[in-house]
This record gives sequence, C-alpha cells and structure tokens, in this order.
Amino acid sequence: MSDLSIYEKQSFGQKLSFGRQSALLIIDFQVGFANPEVLGGYNINEAMDKTVILLKTAREHGIPIAHVRYATQCEGSDIGTFALKVPTLKTLTVDCADAQFVPLLMPLTGEYVSVKRHSSAFFGTNLSSWLTFMGVDTLFIAGCTTSGCVRASTIDASAYGLRPMVVLDCVGDRAQGPHEASIFDMGQKYADLLSLDEAMSHFSGKS
Amino acid sequence: MSDLSIYEKQSFGQKLSFGRQSALLIIDFQVGFANPEVLGGYNINEAMDKTVILLKTAREHGIPIAHVRYATQCEGSDIGTFALKVPTLKTLTVDCADAQFVPLLMPLTGEYVSVKRHSSAFFGTNLSSWLTFMGVDTLFIAGCTTSGCVRASTIDASAYGLRPMVVLDCVGDRAQGPHEASIFDMGQKYADLLSLDEAMSHFSGKS
Amino acid sequence: MSDLSIYEKQSFGQKLSFGRQSALLIIDFQVGFANPEVLGGYNINEAMDKTVILLKTAREHGIPIAHVRYATQCEGSDIGTFALKVPTLKTLTVDCADAQFVPLLMPLTGEYVSVKRHSSAFFGTNLSSWLTFMGVDTLFIAGCTTSGCVRASTIDASAYGLRPMVVLDCVGDRAQGPHEASIFDMGQKYADLLSLDEAMSHFSGKS
Amino acid sequence: MSDLSIYEKQSFGQKLSFGRQSALLIIDFQVGFANPEVLGGYNINEAMDKTVILLKTAREHGIPIAHVRYATQCEGSDIGTFALKVPTLKTLTVDCADAQFVPLLMPLTGEYVSVKRHSSAFFGTNLSSWLTFMGVDTLFIAGCTTSGCVRASTIDASAYGLRPMVVLDCVGDRAQGPHEASIFDMGQKYADLLSLDEAMSHFSGKS
Repeated sequence: MSDLSIYEKQSFGQKLSFGRQSALLIIDFQVGFANPEVLGGYNINEAMDKTVILLKTAREHGIPIAHVRYATQCEGSDIGTFALKVPTLKTLTVDCADAQFVPLLMPLTGEYVSVKRHSSAFFGTNLSSWLTFMGVDTLFIAGCTTSGCVRASTIDASAYGLRPMVVLDCVGDRAQGPHEASIFDMGQKYADLLSLDEAMSHFSGKS
Repeated sequence: MSDLSIYEKQSFGQKLSFGRQSALLIIDFQVGFANPEVLGGYNINEAMDKTVILLKTAREHGIPIAHVRYATQCEGSDIGTFALKVPTLKTLTVDCADAQFVPLLMPLTGEYVSVKRHSSAFFGTNLSSWLTFMGVDTLFIAGCTTSGCVRASTIDASAYGLRPMVVLDCVGDRAQGPHEASIFDMGQKYADLLSLDEAMSHFSGKS
Repeated sequence: MSDLSIYEKQSFGQKLSFGRQSALLIIDFQVGFANPEVLGGYNINEAMDKTVILLKTAREHGIPIAHVRYATQCEGSDIGTFALKVPTLKTLTVDCADAQFVPLLMPLTGEYVSVKRHSSAFFGTNLSSWLTFMGVDTLFIAGCTTSGCVRASTIDASAYGLRPMVVLDCVGDRAQGPHEASIFDMGQKYADLLSLDEAMSHFSGKS
Repeated sequence: MSDLSIYEKQSFGQKLSFGRQSALLIIDFQVGFANPEVLGGYNINEAMDKTVILLKTAREHGIPIAHVRYATQCEGSDIGTFALKVPTLKTLTVDCADAQFVPLLMPLTGEYVSVKRHSSAFFGTNLSSWLTFMGVDTLFIAGCTTSGCVRASTIDASAYGLRPMVVLDCVGDRAQGPHEASIFDMGQKYADLLSLDEAMSHFSGKS
C-alpha cells in the first residue's frame, strides 16, 4: 500500500510487545455469523476453525478467556440506531438459534461471558472491569467481523490502556476489502498483528 | 466495490434520517493535523476549509457545537499504549502549538470543549452527557482522521444511541486508502453520509 | 438535620423539575432482596409493593420502562472486588431463584432489561444508550437498596445528563440509617424527591 | 450503629486487603472547597492538611499519583443537571481561582491530571485507562466531599475492578452527618477504611 510511507514518517505502526498478563477475547462467533445467508461471509468460518485451536491452547495454559456475543434483549430498541442502519440485527434476539455461540466455541463455567448490543465488546459490558480484576494488560483478540466488532473492540482495548494483539488467522469478515483495510489500520494505530502460531507460542510460555 | 452485494443482501446501509435535534461535532482539527510533517496529510486541510463554512452555518442557526482535540496532559502516560504504537502522539502536549485548534476553527464561549486522550471523542470525555442534556439525537461529524478519530467517534455515537451523520467534505485523512475504506464502512454500519451542502441545508431548516 | 444550613447557603437542593420525556427505572427488585435472610431487610418489601402500583400506571400511560437486576455470570470473577467485600453477592448467579425479578415486577416483552454486575444500573450496561435512543431526559427511579444501587444509579443518571427523580415510596434499604442518609444526599445533590402519588400523577399527564 | 447487625449477617464489610500495585487519587482539593463560603466546610481543610503529608510520602516512594478537579469548561451546560441542582457549581469555571488545586497539593509534571464535570473522578475522564496502563489494582483515595465526589469515585473504583482504600484522615465533607454515613456505607460495600498512618506505612513498603 503506497499510503504506508506517510505512516512510517509520522511514527505509526511501532510494536507494542507483550505485557505482564495476557487474556483471550472471542467476539461474535455466533451461529448467525457462520452463515452467509444471515450475517456471515468471506473468511469468517475459517477464522472460527482457527479460533477453536487457539481457544484449546489458551485453556490448556490457564489464559483468562472472555466470550462476547451480540444480541437484542428488547426487540431492537436496546440496540438503538444500529438496528435502523442494519435491520437484520434485530433478528438476533438473545434466545434465538442464530444468536448462540457456535458449538465448538461455547464458554466453559468460570470464563467471562457477556451479551453486548453494539460493536465494541467493551461498550455496555463490564469487560474492562473483569480484565482489571484479573490483572490483564495484554488482550489477544479473535472474532468477527474484522471491520466491525473486532475493530471497535480493538480501538476500545487501546483506549482502556491495554495492549491489543489481533490474531490474524482468527479474525474474519464478510468481505475481503473491509477486512484488509481494517487490518492495516489496526496494525498502524492500535494493535500488534500476530499469526495463530505466534499467539499459541506466547500462550504456551515460549515467547 | 464488489463487496457491496453481500452488504446489500444482509440489509446493511439503510438510511437513518434526521432526528429531532442536531448538533455538530468537530474532531482534532488542530495545528499538528494541518501539517503533513507532524500528523497531517492527504485531504485534511481541504476538510478543514470546508468545515469553516459548516461551522459558520451551524452558528448562524443555533446548532449546538462541540469541539474536541487530542493532547497528552501527563507526558504520554495518560494516552497509554496509543503512545507506544504512535510515539509522535506524545509530542502533542496540551499547551503546545501543535495541539491547539487551528485559528479558523476556534471554539466560542459556551460551545462544548474537551481534551481527549484516545481516538473517540466520547472516550474519557463527557460528550455524551452534554449531548443528552442538550436534547441532541443527531450528530453531524467533521474532523480528522477519517480512519482514526472520526471513525472511532462515529462508532461510539452509534453505540450511545445517536444518529451519526458524517459530512463527507468535512472529514479528512493522511492517506486516501484508509479514508475511503472507512467512509464505506461507516456508511454501511453506523452513519448516514452527507455532502456539505446537505448538512448546511439541514442546519438552515431546509431539510 | 442541622447540617442543612450549609447546604442551603451553598445553593444545594434546588428543584430540577420534569423535562420533555420521562422513563421508569426499576433496580434490583429480585427474589433475594425480598428476603432479609439473603440481601433484603427494613422497608424493601414495602417499596416493592408500591412499585407494583407505579409500574402499572407507567405501563398504562406508555412510559418507557427499564428493569435491571444484579447477577454474576462467571462465578463471581465478573463482579470483581465487590464479591470480596460482600461474598454473599457471589451466590446471585444469573439463573438462580434469588437473582430473578420478583413475580409481580417481571418485565414485559419490549421493555428494556439488563443484567448488571455492579451497583449502578448504568455501569456495564447500555442503559444510557437506550434512554438516549428513546429520547428520555427524565428518569424516575425505584428499587433497592437506597444507599447502594439506587444511589449509584442516581449519581450516574445525573452524570449522564438526565434529570433523576427518586420516588420515595418505591426505594428501600436493608437498614433505616443508610436509607435516610442517602435520601438526604440525593435530594441535595442529584435528584428531585417525589412521592408515589406525585410520580403517578406525572405519568398520567396531570403534572 | 444498630443497623450493623444485618450487614454482618449478610456478609457485608469484609476486608479487601492490598493488591499488587497501589496508586493515590486526590479528588477536588481545590481553592473553592477550602472555603466554607464557597463549597467547603466541616473537616475539609483538616483533610487537606493530612493529604499534604500523604502526598509527600507517596512521592517519596514512587507511588503513581492522580489529581482530579471539578470545573465547567462551557458556562455550565457541560455539567448538565448537576448545575440545576447546585447552581454554585457553575461558578467553578476552569480558569477561575476557586477551581484551581490548593497550593500545597499542586500536581507535579508527569502525575496524572484531569478536569471532571461530575462527581466521580472516573466519569468523563480516562482515569481508569491510566490506572490500567500503570498496572494499578489498589487505589488509595483522598479528597472531598466524602458524601459526594469521594463516594462516587469509590463506587466507580469498585466497579472498574479496583481495590478502593479510603484514607479516613484525608477525606472531608461540608457536614458531619453525610460524612459519617458515607464512611459507613463505603466500608460496608466498596472499600477498606484506613488511617493516614496505615496508608503511609503501606506506601513505605512496611505493610
């Protein structure tokens, strides 16, 4: 991308590196997002498959894990203008099949779980409080969509004082263009970009 | 953009339309962002020029106006990991020349003003409280950068229950690719996209 | 209270008066708070009885209604240091009997509902977003406890730019001293204090 | 207080104990709060004197320090309904003498500083982000008023996942009744209560 030179000149895109305590956040890997006829598409299902591996490794090494899913609990009025912009979101009612976590990525007892009503996993949840209580300063991020809830959550993770780590193999979007544009922006401004192997290596204490 | 078809099929990109009471938010039009050697570039200065016109019209018609600027008040520790990712941000100390609003877009007494330390104009400010107190439900957004603070503020405006209106002529970025990608995403998910003429027409009570 | 004179001299305790659009918020009227052996006591059950009347009137007149209840969804780690200070709170798991709304105050479909993990009904929920989207500027508050979640929610209602209206007959606490002290503080700093009759009269359009 | 028995029976008032990293927060020790003719009274000046000692010790031992003060930056519209309830607050404009920190408690370069517009030191500031970035999990609290901004900040410190430590000698209020009632409530629900000596001993590494 030819835009890169001005970012480099202005000091964007430095490496954050890992902090003291990591956690894993998985965003919106729900049934409806696994289905291109509902809210899925492009590389979301592949990102879900890779996240199954990442989650297994995180659990094996005692990494704190947070699961967040999108749903309306109030026939759409609680998701506000988001439902006016994207009416399909109103169909994700909290108990419907499409709003549930996909079977291979179900939370275990003791893992953090929240329903959210907006893009960011932090907005209208107490995710940041839980991370503070758990002593977390470094947040690995998986989920969908890259240009929607992953990006919004990454911006907020940075704003809340955390080190966001976007696991490239584990984030997906409904279309390629927005996916790649958001990867670029997040890597320049807010987050380090890692492969699944690098994330697993870190969770295993090898980096 | 060929990605558009899946967005259309999934109901993205509907029109919000105006609500009951509008306000104008101007983000980070500061001296350092007018200078490509600091944090500026591409079409930011042009967006500033157009915003001078928009601000004049807003004032003439009594539209509530909020000005937000980026600065560190604590040698960079208060901007957290953002300063690790983009070290130049640490140079924008609250009293330095580069951190001031550009001369043609200075706030007037009685207009809302906040210093922020992160991307979103809402994060770490009480902007949403002021908008609620003023009865605002529709937020016109100008400022820079499109893919940074404008986008983060637009996401939050949506999350806070507002109708975000991005004024296309009045938002700028340091590079064209990220600018256009964020315009697309915001128009699909969070905001209506308007021209300067449409915004001025609305402020004047003609729409 | 002899302390009153300095509050008067310093201008505390003025009347807010009603705004443009009211809503009703009911906080933590759950099974466990109806039981003095769990988290109840003093006048909470009486406040619940009076709130049944208030809720009926609110529904009859189309007042937007929000219900918030306290629960842990993560074996206590999601409520953080609150569970260290008050270990009983960990027993209010999201699906247990004590954590459910009392039968006479169950939400109806379309009313706003959130689970919260801290004192304030606003913290870690998107209540303020829903209120903004509904055009609400005046918030009637019922619930328990007066010195705990009612007070924390009233402080936040004020901070979010709203006019808090504490309905005296409809707020209860586990002990009289803290109840009365918080009523005094809220009336001086954040909220107007109303009787059930005054609230019903307003909902009915008579004030 | 005879109310205490029900609190004990319901498990309230357990000890939090210190965490891994402490910080000191000083709230609203401003010129106008040192003056009973403006917003001061009762034991505020004494609490300021004791805080001078606490601050000196904190600095000597490298404890991170945050200073927050109350002010309007927008002729009162930015403080919302708080200014309707307490009109005197509108006189604390950001540059006026009464809104400045008292001379003996001025921030040093590198210490966290924010202007706030509501009771809580966390609301409309990025205090929680800074604390996260600094790795803080335990927050010592000094300031005024006990029943206003100290209490609101203590509630929020708990909600954000921190261990609040209220330093009894270093918090003051304009009247005795509300001061004591809030000390009781905070000790039962949110915070450990410490003397100045205990706080200094901890900062010095002796506890």
